[in-house]
Amino acid sequence: MPSIFTRIINREIPGYIVAENEHAIAFLDINPLNEGHTLVVPKLEVDKLFDLDEDAYLNLQAFTHKVAKAIEKAIPCLRVGVAVIGLEVPHAHIHLIPLHGIHDIDFGRPKLKLSQEQFEEIVVKIKAEM
Amino acid sequence: MPSIFTRIINREIPGYIVAENEHAIAFLDINPLNEGHTLVVPKLEVDKLFDLDEDAYLNLQAFTHKVAKAIEKAIPCLRVGVAVIGLEVPHAHIHLIPLHGIHDIDFGRPKLKLSQEQFEEIVVKIKAEM
Repeated sequence: MPSIFTRIINREIPGYIVAENEHAIAFLDINPLNEGHTLVVPKLEVDKLFDLDEDAYLNLQAFTHKVAKAIEKAIPCLRVGVAVIGLEVPHAHIHLIPLHGIHDIDFGRPKLKLSQEQFEEIVVKIKAEM
Repeated sequence: MPSIFTRIINREIPGYIVAENEHAIAFLDINPLNEGHTLVVPKLEVDKLFDLDEDAYLNLQAFTHKVAKAIEKAIPCLRVGVAVIGLEVPHAHIHLIPLHGIHDIDFGRPKLKLSQEQFEEIVVKIKAEM
């Protein structure tokens, strides 16, 4: 069965997509730690990030670099932080999280609730910097 | 003044170094969240990871991929997770953290206390897989 991320890639379920290329896609996390929290996902459905071979990993990271720079320009923050855990969805994904403080990367803290309009505004802002 | 990481790179202060190349170095975090918690640091002293230009970023990530694969082989864990925060030391660094559960990447939780012998054993194990 395809992962929830593959279903977003295939447009079977909606996603707040901010960027896409041949190898990867980036969309907003719908349970964000901060505004602009984005997931970068390789189109190749592997479970663990480091199971990507070096070429596939570097393709994904080149795309991640571009997306992170756009988020840093679009969303007021100290910088964009990164987290890769991946124990809940078995399809590798990189969290890009605009940081306002040292403790922002703690997945145990409550997630933001944003409206569809708020998510769509964030997509527009990030896309404008891509 | 050079960062604490540049001082490790320059061998002015000791570090539990597991790998090094022309562009980057990897050494154990001395306040680890888990055994095998490693920092990957570019030799170029930039504050924010995404301020590295694409070439420098991809050089660092190619090295990171090799180190992460070695840690996954050397240290019993579910997988190696990643975190980049960087608000405490103004020299970009990637945390590679062997994960045993979803909540392992929480920098608010107590750090492990390991002896010099324990750190040195971990270095030997990771180096053996590089």
